[in-house]
Amino acid sequence: MDTSTMQQLLGEFIGTMVLVLLGDGVVAGNVLNKSKGENSGWVMITLGWGLAVTIAVYASGFLSPAHLNPAVTLGMAVAGEIEWGLVLPYIIAQMLGAFAGAVLVWIQYLPHWAATEDDETKLAVFATGPAIRSMGANLVSEIIGTIVLVFGLLAFTRGEFTEGLNPLVVGALITSIGLSLGGTTGYAINPARDLGPRIAHQVLPVAGKGHSDWGYSWVPVVGPMIGGAVAALLYNMIP
Amino acid sequence: MDTSTMQQLLGEFIGTMVLVLLGDGVVAGNVLNKSKGENSGWVMITLGWGLAVTIAVYASGFLSPAHLNPAVTLGMAVAGEIEWGLVLPYIIAQMLGAFAGAVLVWIQYLPHWAATEDDETKLAVFATGPAIRSMGANLVSEIIGTIVLVFGLLAFTRGEFTEGLNPLVVGALITSIGLSLGGTTGYAINPARDLGPRIAHQVLPVAGKGHSDWGYSWVPVVGPMIGGAVAALLYNMIP
Amino acid sequence: MDTSTMQQLLGEFIGTMVLVLLGDGVVAGNVLNKSKGENSGWVMITLGWGLAVTIAVYASGFLSPAHLNPAVTLGMAVAGEIEWGLVLPYIIAQMLGAFAGAVLVWIQYLPHWAATEDDETKLAVFATGPAIRSMGANLVSEIIGTIVLVFGLLAFTRGEFTEGLNPLVVGALITSIGLSLGGTTGYAINPARDLGPRIAHQVLPVAGKGHSDWGYSWVPVVGPMIGGAVAALLYNMIP
Amino acid sequence: MDTSTMQQLLGEFIGTMVLVLLGDGVVAGNVLNKSKGENSGWVMITLGWGLAVTIAVYASGFLSPAHLNPAVTLGMAVAGEIEWGLVLPYIIAQMLGAFAGAVLVWIQYLPHWAATEDDETKLAVFATGPAIRSMGANLVSEIIGTIVLVFGLLAFTRGEFTEGLNPLVVGALITSIGLSLGGTTGYAINPARDLGPRIAHQVLPVAGKGHSDWGYSWVPVVGPMIGGAVAALLYNMIP
Repeated sequence: MDTSTMQQLLGEFIGTMVLVLLGDGVVAGNVLNKSKGENSGWVMITLGWGLAVTIAVYASGFLSPAHLNPAVTLGMAVAGEIEWGLVLPYIIAQMLGAFAGAVLVWIQYLPHWAATEDDETKLAVFATGPAIRSMGANLVSEIIGTIVLVFGLLAFTRGEFTEGLNPLVVGALITSIGLSLGGTTGYAINPARDLGPRIAHQVLPVAGKGHSDWGYSWVPVVGPMIGGAVAALLYNMIP
Repeated sequence: MDTSTMQQLLGEFIGTMVLVLLGDGVVAGNVLNKSKGENSGWVMITLGWGLAVTIAVYASGFLSPAHLNPAVTLGMAVAGEIEWGLVLPYIIAQMLGAFAGAVLVWIQYLPHWAATEDDETKLAVFATGPAIRSMGANLVSEIIGTIVLVFGLLAFTRGEFTEGLNPLVVGALITSIGLSLGGTTGYAINPARDLGPRIAHQVLPVAGKGHSDWGYSWVPVVGPMIGGAVAALLYNMIP
Repeated sequence: MDTSTMQQLLGEFIGTMVLVLLGDGVVAGNVLNKSKGENSGWVMITLGWGLAVTIAVYASGFLSPAHLNPAVTLGMAVAGEIEWGLVLPYIIAQMLGAFAGAVLVWIQYLPHWAATEDDETKLAVFATGPAIRSMGANLVSEIIGTIVLVFGLLAFTRGEFTEGLNPLVVGALITSIGLSLGGTTGYAINPARDLGPRIAHQVLPVAGKGHSDWGYSWVPVVGPMIGGAVAALLYNMIP
Repeated sequence: MDTSTMQQLLGEFIGTMVLVLLGDGVVAGNVLNKSKGENSGWVMITLGWGLAVTIAVYASGFLSPAHLNPAVTLGMAVAGEIEWGLVLPYIIAQMLGAFAGAVLVWIQYLPHWAATEDDETKLAVFATGPAIRSMGANLVSEIIGTIVLVFGLLAFTRGEFTEGLNPLVVGALITSIGLSLGGTTGYAINPARDLGPRIAHQVLPVAGKGHSDWGYSWVPVVGPMIGGAVAALLYNMIP
């Protein structure tokens, strides 16, 4: 592995760690008991996740293309923007980063886990869950959300979104998807963002935690991967 | 029809589809029962519609000038920014895109339609309605809102708003109109955005839907077309 | 009067008209009965006023330097950025624009005036009022708010704020002042924004209106003018 | 001391004064009785603090690098971006600026102090306090928040963040940290922002004030300084 590849993987690790620290962090700030941001609602969540992506792209964009998302990496490979040989290493770095970010969220809000009774609330900080459980409809929701994400990134700057103020636009895209399409499944639209923290929830000694809902866990992994690939294929079809 | 024209019409179709998917989507996320964003209020709606326009312009701006609105297309023709021969084809592409976007919103929130009782709430996802029904006043509201939109777009960059970060400004303009002038009629300010989804509401098997309020439907079509033309005439009069 | 001066005055008229249409409009949307944005709160108000200024600068910046505020014009004259001979004509154009904008707000929300009982609420759409009536403290509040405004504009780009995306920064400045300093007097920080619409409230047949609170009206005129001059003097003193 | 150094120190003084005026101001607007923004919640606070930083950077960036924060100055020194000899003078200027800003907030909201009963609410305008008092966890929270701040600033533009629209990104970073990591301790992440106003609370005749919570005061000083240094060390380690 040459220096450049190592830097890229370090970038994907750092960026996805920051993404999940700030993204899961805004959920924690909204739902955990005694948090100063408790019950601030959906605008706080979607604004916070959008800014989380913006900051994560800045924090890693000097090292890597800042995909920070296996569905984006797959889409960029399908669109011919990165080599296929980088796809698996990227995804591993993103998964490790997402896990590390979730550990940091657990530490950041350490006294608040015991202060919060409901165990489903605690899981919601780490992983997404559907508003109405219906695996087929939930899968379609994640596919549509991810198509908008990856098609938007390709149309915006063909995947060169780390320059100048462009990360603000990427954050706006995430906030928009959250506001408009996230009400159904909580818009994972990123397998690393969902699976990495779900594993962290499983293994960490979170005070008073319940189950990690593995029955649903395949939806926010499979849906976004399908969506990322479909978006790139649609983009490639445009004359 | 040459390649460039086909690309432009494809752009108007894609852009208006994304616009309605994200724009009607934020209303769905706010009003449908069990949505995670339920009852987040007017700031969520206006922020979501502004971002919907920003993203829609990015998603189509590499193909077309991203009018995404028959009132804007009419205004640009009056202002001499596009050929008159393109006006009708553009409007047809926008209408088809708006219809397709509304179908996608129906699919995205599929389990939530049956979960929502009130049928007027369901119509509100697709089409606008007045806060106080008074056809004359409602028409004037739509005219004023659209004048601000089209005059703003002309003053901003004479209709070249797809470059760089400019779509963020266009989104800010939409959010501003929504916050300041939208309280009366829900700021259609775009005949395609209102009529396309209203037709979709009529023909789709939306669970538990009511009537499509065709009695009001001419206001958000006629008002914006008048406003778009007036704005361009006013702009042309400036020395 | 040469063409350039006429264009500048037209710009100040149009810009201040748009400013008050969108600025007073967001208050109307928040406080008038049956408005779709009713009771959305202070974040809506401050975001709406910030965007109102951004859009107003875009709508007039191709004609004039887009002061849209006698306190800014006075500050720019003290700082040597415009000729003193233009100060009075600018202020007259701004006052007329603010009056026209208030008339448009009255028209935009026409059915909502009769639907709203409280007459102080109706005045609040047109003019500012203090949270705690205390003329001395209220005057100081307006002075401090306007110092931040005019010093910020001078520090930002020495008053050249109409180019590119700069109007977004000017809007951010207004939103910041509103959020942080506006809780006391409603941040007029602009004599035209307050006096023009107050006169409109006095002369228009607003359904069920009460008095126009002329006893307080000098505070949001005198305070901002002092603040604008002081800000420019402080800026000039910096080595 | 040469002219350039004097200008830099004046810049740090002015910038930190504006930072605290607008930052503590938004807390005052949210929590003091009878304020027009009363109880607008956490989104208002975090948006207001983000904009406060944006405006403060603009207000001082023509004079100094606009650190406005001893933790940022320390981090920049560790990263080799400024001379060590400037660190102490910068910190003194920032502390004086923060104190002056707190005095201005006291004046701006003068009639509201007596109108507010709870004395802990009044302290909250000036200084941060923990949601759950647990010194170790609170310290870790401040360290993590400041690491994100200083690492983000270094990754963004190696500390050159005063140019063009970059201050908007710095403000977005602050809002993101507030939304995602601020729920625990109120995100001081800046020793001057916390200690300067706490001293002001101690010495000013704030109507009906209580104690200044000196027992907690070391956490928002020590935590950010550790975080700033660690962030720079981590950044330096990146190949």
